[in-house]
This record gives sequence, structure tokens and C-alpha cells, in this order.
Amino acid sequence: MSAPQIEHLIQLLSRLPGFGPRSARRGALFLMDKKDSHLLPLIQAMQEVADHVKVCPICGNMDTETPCSICTNSKRDGSQICVVEDVADLWALERAGLFKGHYHVLGGVLSALDGIGPDELKIDGLITRVQSGNVQEVILALPATVDGQTTVHYLAERLAKYPVKVTTLSRGVPLGGELDYLDDGTIQMAFKSRRDV
Amino acid sequence: MSAPQIEHLIQLLSRLPGFGPRSARRGALFLMDKKDSHLLPLIQAMQEVADHVKVCPICGNMDTETPCSICTNSKRDGSQICVVEDVADLWALERAGLFKGHYHVLGGVLSALDGIGPDELKIDGLITRVQSGNVQEVILALPATVDGQTTVHYLAERLAKYPVKVTTLSRGVPLGGELDYLDDGTIQMAFKSRRDV
Repeated sequence: MSAPQIEHLIQLLSRLPGFGPRSARRGALFLMDKKDSHLLPLIQAMQEVADHVKVCPICGNMDTETPCSICTNSKRDGSQICVVEDVADLWALERAGLFKGHYHVLGGVLSALDGIGPDELKIDGLITRVQSGNVQEVILALPATVDGQTTVHYLAERLAKYPVKVTTLSRGVPLGGELDYLDDGTIQMAFKSRRDV
Repeated sequence: MSAPQIEHLIQLLSRLPGFGPRSARRGALFLMDKKDSHLLPLIQAMQEVADHVKVCPICGNMDTETPCSICTNSKRDGSQICVVEDVADLWALERAGLFKGHYHVLGGVLSALDGIGPDELKIDGLITRVQSGNVQEVILALPATVDGQTTVHYLAERLAKYPVKVTTLSRGVPLGGELDYLDDGTIQMAFKSRRDV
């Protein structure tokens, strides 16, 4: 149809999450149309990231420094480790901006369906960090899905023999949530764990 | 939040059509996660396109050759010029695969609201091509919107003094279209331009 170079770019763009063949074509046309203002800067930005961004060997975060700037930040509290599924969740917590401890990126959650067992996740690294001694609390900030909660229970069991407090995020009605629009499970959970005003 | 290089990449990705801040973050994480299989090939593909793809000086198509492979293809019929809004529409017609003439990319349609007048579009180039003599039919394949149809009428008027046939795409019920789901305008149009079976 069009030049092989353009076809190849469209094919690669269509693999991006949220992109299909049609949006990849639109993206390719947009980039070719705006070569100096968008295509060339994007190439450079991607090259920078490819050259400099590494996975932190301690927590699994992605950063230009190793260990990452969160692990090496002396203002952050190393006695708290927040366990997250992936880097996107770590970023979400950082945007929320209230947690000032360290993180541990699991790289997924246990899933019988997808064949993800404990060996596929970075659980040994977490245990090693807990064993090192100065960790007082492990916060399991995993998704409120069946797989996420299975992982919470598995990790709680693995961590039971160490002198650390193991906590998880509270469940309930989200901010701005209208009861009428919530699923039954959430309403039941929020009702059961109701608290004094 | 995260490294400035990553932030910069997210910011550039979020400008792609169909991408917002959230999908840009997902895209950036996806690319960093799959550096060898996706990030580096994508950088290379974009560089290839940046280096080689040019706008055809005759028709406005994008290709690695100038003039483009459609304009120089001796098997295609130079007596028919199909006028399209942009390269995406040219590609759509090429995918449909029935038109074997030449194209002319206008680069937009007339729009009072967006301040796009005849001078913003590549109309002079079209007139020059028609004047050159061997064009017999100009097919105005412009969108069935108010602006598209305004442009059709404007171009038809401009082309009236040349000995060329000026046609436009037929309007009616699209393939597989259920009347119940169609807008009133389409039904009216299809009814008015009904034809013998």
C-alpha cells in the first residue's frame, strides 16, 4: 500500500497498549506530518530512555539511577516497604504523594489462569529485604481482584515468621462513589467494615 | 515523580492522537519493559521514516520516493484524479483497492469555523494539474460533512471552466447498514436518490 518503512512503523505502533491498526495509522501520519515538532523529539526522547533507564536492583522501579532515586533518598523511611504489582502502580502511589517509604515491585500477581506462580514474581527479593532487619511494616498495595487478594494472602503467610507488621489497603466506597453505581461486592465490603463516625 | 527522561517521553507520547496522559504512561512503561523487542525497533523505524519519507510534490501523498510511487506508476491512469482530504483518506481508498488513477491530497477542507479558506488548501496545484491537459475526470472523494460538501461545491465551481468531468462519491445506506440505526439525513438522501433494481 504505502512505503515499507511507513508500513513497518505502523506495525510497531499498533503493538502499543491501547493502539490498534487504525490508531497506529493515525499516529504514523501525525508523526510524519509533524516531523520536526513531534517525530524527531520523540525519537530523541525514546533514545534517551533506552540509553539511561534501568530497573532498580533493589525495588524494581525504573529510573536513570541504580539504585533508584526512591531507594537512595535519605529522606524516605526505609522501615516501610510498599509492595505493588508493577511500576504503573508505584507511580500512581507517588502521584497520590502520601507514602514516604520504600517500594517493592512484584512484577505481577499470582494467577493460576496465566500460570504465574511465586517463582515468576520477585518475592525472594522482598523476603531478603525483610530479613535484612530494619523493615517494620510491609504494606501490600495489590489490586482488589481475586488474583491480587490471593497474592496478599500468600505474601502474608510467607512474611508471618518475620517480626514485621503486614498491612493491606482498606476496601470500601471510593471517593465520590454513589452507592447506586457501585457493585454489590463493594457495598457488602464497605458495609461489613463500617466504622464509627 | 520519575526520572525527567521518562517524564519527557510520557509528555511526547501523550500528544499522539488518541493518547492521553494515562495511556502515554502505559505506553512508556510498555516500551521500557520491552526495550529490545519494541523500544529499539520503534526508534529505528521512526528514524527510517524521518530520514526517507517525503511529501510528493505532485499529489501530496507521503512516500520514500519523490514523486510518489502512485504518481510514477505507469500502470495507473493519469486521466483520473481523485481529490481527498488527507493522506489517511488516500490510504483508505488504496485499501479499498478499486481506484487505479492518481490522487490529489487537499490537506483539509474549507472550514469557516477553523478559519480554513481556499488559500490554506492545495487547490492551485489541482487546477494546474487539470490545466496541464490530459485529465479527464476529477473525483471529489471528500467527507460527507458540511465542510466537506462546501469544499465539493467550491471545487466544482472552480473546475467548471475546464473540460473535465467532475464527480463525487454517491451517498446512501452503507454496506450492512440497518435502517433503524441510520440517521434521518442518510435515510432521506438514500430515499431521494433511489435507483431501479
